[in-house]
Amino acid sequence: MRAPGCFDERLSLLDAYAWLDACPSATGSEQILLAQSFGRLLAAPVTFPADRPDRDIALTDGYAAQAESTLGASSYNPLFLTIVPDGAALASGYAAVCRVGARLPPGADAVLPLEVAEAKGPVLEVCGAVARGSGVGRKGQGAQRGETAITTGRRLDAPQIALAASLGLTELTVRRRPDVAVVLAGPKPPAIEALSLAISALVERDGGVAHCAPPPIEMARSLAGVAPSSLIALVGRSGQGQDDDAVGAIAAAGGRIDYHGLALTPGGSAGLGWLGATPLLLLPGDPLSALASYELLAGRLVRRLAGRSWEFPGSIRKFTLSRKIASQVGVAEWVPVVCNGSSAEPLALAPADGLAGYARADGFLVVAAHLEGYAPGSLVDVIVTSEGAGSREME
Amino acid sequence: MRAPGCFDERLSLLDAYAWLDACPSATGSEQILLAQSFGRLLAAPVTFPADRPDRDIALTDGYAAQAESTLGASSYNPLFLTIVPDGAALASGYAAVCRVGARLPPGADAVLPLEVAEAKGPVLEVCGAVARGSGVGRKGQGAQRGETAITTGRRLDAPQIALAASLGLTELTVRRRPDVAVVLAGPKPPAIEALSLAISALVERDGGVAHCAPPPIEMARSLAGVAPSSLIALVGRSGQGQDDDAVGAIAAAGGRIDYHGLALTPGGSAGLGWLGATPLLLLPGDPLSALASYELLAGRLVRRLAGRSWEFPGSIRKFTLSRKIASQVGVAEWVPVVCNGSSAEPLALAPADGLAGYARADGFLVVAAHLEGYAPGSLVDVIVTSEGAGSREME
Repeated sequence: MRAPGCFDERLSLLDAYAWLDACPSATGSEQILLAQSFGRLLAAPVTFPADRPDRDIALTDGYAAQAESTLGASSYNPLFLTIVPDGAALASGYAAVCRVGARLPPGADAVLPLEVAEAKGPVLEVCGAVARGSGVGRKGQGAQRGETAITTGRRLDAPQIALAASLGLTELTVRRRPDVAVVLAGPKPPAIEALSLAISALVERDGGVAHCAPPPIEMARSLAGVAPSSLIALVGRSGQGQDDDAVGAIAAAGGRIDYHGLALTPGGSAGLGWLGATPLLLLPGDPLSALASYELLAGRLVRRLAGRSWEFPGSIRKFTLSRKIASQVGVAEWVPVVCNGSSAEPLALAPADGLAGYARADGFLVVAAHLEGYAPGSLVDVIVTSEGAGSREME
Repeated sequence: MRAPGCFDERLSLLDAYAWLDACPSATGSEQILLAQSFGRLLAAPVTFPADRPDRDIALTDGYAAQAESTLGASSYNPLFLTIVPDGAALASGYAAVCRVGARLPPGADAVLPLEVAEAKGPVLEVCGAVARGSGVGRKGQGAQRGETAITTGRRLDAPQIALAASLGLTELTVRRRPDVAVVLAGPKPPAIEALSLAISALVERDGGVAHCAPPPIEMARSLAGVAPSSLIALVGRSGQGQDDDAVGAIAAAGGRIDYHGLALTPGGSAGLGWLGATPLLLLPGDPLSALASYELLAGRLVRRLAGRSWEFPGSIRKFTLSRKIASQVGVAEWVPVVCNGSSAEPLALAPADGLAGYARADGFLVVAAHLEGYAPGSLVDVIVTSEGAGSREME
């Protein structure tokens, strides 16, 4: 039995990123209700089913007329048109009330806005001339039938949903969300329940769907029984202690581990491998280490599988470090911080119980492997995960 | 009848912000399942129900012993301890296997890590001395009973959910989400369906719960029948045309409008008022104008009611403007843009059909009222709403 953490050769964080980024990321597409499509990625283009507008329309409220009827009109020299009922064809000298968006009556070629035309009983007083086509939206002027309305890959936010609905669509084809099988092998209750909830929430945040398997009696059988997934996260028993049998269980289930042991703390016992064609991430079972290695390793792949940027979903902001961080050269270190104004304080985590401290963090930073830490006062990039960092108290 | 848009005195956007920010924002609290609490705001502090750890524990895998038994041990001068079964009290000269997190056996005051101690049958070979307390987590060292574990106002992300679960909690008290009554008065189908979906999605994004009333037959009666809400958004019939009767309907329902007409485009016919003690926002019914004024006005209040920052949820980034923007002095202008690399292009929106163009936008900017626009090449702040702006095409 080797001492925990004594992996012979550890994979660097950057090499782990390269491994993750080389995983296949196709997840297919599915048809869903437009009402449930917010935030999803369009997987097949939406096209305009008809010219937009589909006929000549009025662009303002006003009066449809022939432009030549208004030639020479001004407030000093008002001209008068005869108002005819809606729908009638217009000849020169006539006008008809029209509303913005309404079809232009036959014969009309302009819309007089209310600023230049005032109805006086059956007669329209016109105090300004308009050009032909003025106030008129031509058929197909906005978009032509068959033109792309929403491109493939577009994230569906309110404008795209409104446009699709206005085209009469009730369903859209979107990229399928990646299924992430989470097999919790390691920690005992209530830590296992804690990780199940927290990792599910993180997978959802990153655009995936988490399927948490119940704690396995026999790990290899649990792994072999995992439903088809885009990614398997096996949490726990990743170290080198007596009952740390995760790597053996992966082999027994027909999988393989490409790398075990990362030059990363916490998360040094993480591993990267495969179960068939499905990438399998081995994460440590200690709650803090599991969450940290989810953030640094698994989340990156979940986001890419979901068609998102691999970048961390929090914002990256500069803070001044209030205390020194000492870090081992050759190992990338994940450090949660509390932010206060423009300063960030590295959290002192209780040994073997980092979770209580991490719950106070506003974000984290990563000390690159080639650095031996940061001096106090250093300007560092913090990935801010907590909205309103530094201004927490509410009422 | 006055011409549309000819409001006598328009409220500036900044004054509208001040009105919105002065609205009461208490929404109360509710008890919810921990599993559904991701992203919510804690409304009552979570405290540690017991000391953490609740007893002296081992901080590493290794062997519990009395530190004095190891005095003088080194690799040149190994000492030998007798291994006793788990649970037995330890006297000097004895040791017991222990795992990280396990209770320290009575009598032990240190844990020898595996690096300095190796079992050889019933005997433990110790090749290093340890100090008293080394490798031991003292009862209450992490946190003491009754101490705050998660502060009120904290947004519940994975670490907080994991911590709450590890404390055995299954429910949390969180800030209630604001109910937003959306009364769609204005646009005809399918525009009304489009706005119903899109505004609901935006309210959800901003932390609220949207309740869309069916299109009202008689607007005043619909308004009077609105369920108790934190905010009412009345969409449509806000202008000054013949059937723009929203302001009258508000009065008929017993409400009042403080301001009608904003120095804002689009969204110039928006209004701010009250129905009883509930703030009521009047938004234009044209889909583009409705979405723009939701973003600029309603969203700000929804986010504050939800206990979030009033700031727009997208990130703010600098872009170089590729084309000039001309804007009327005295009116704030909302301009959707397409981003490409480091450059932002203002979208040319089809008159009376801005939605199709807006669906292509990656974000928007606001030209302040005192500016007459921006020259090409200007560095502008864009509120980016579309992830991956400028690198859209996926496969």
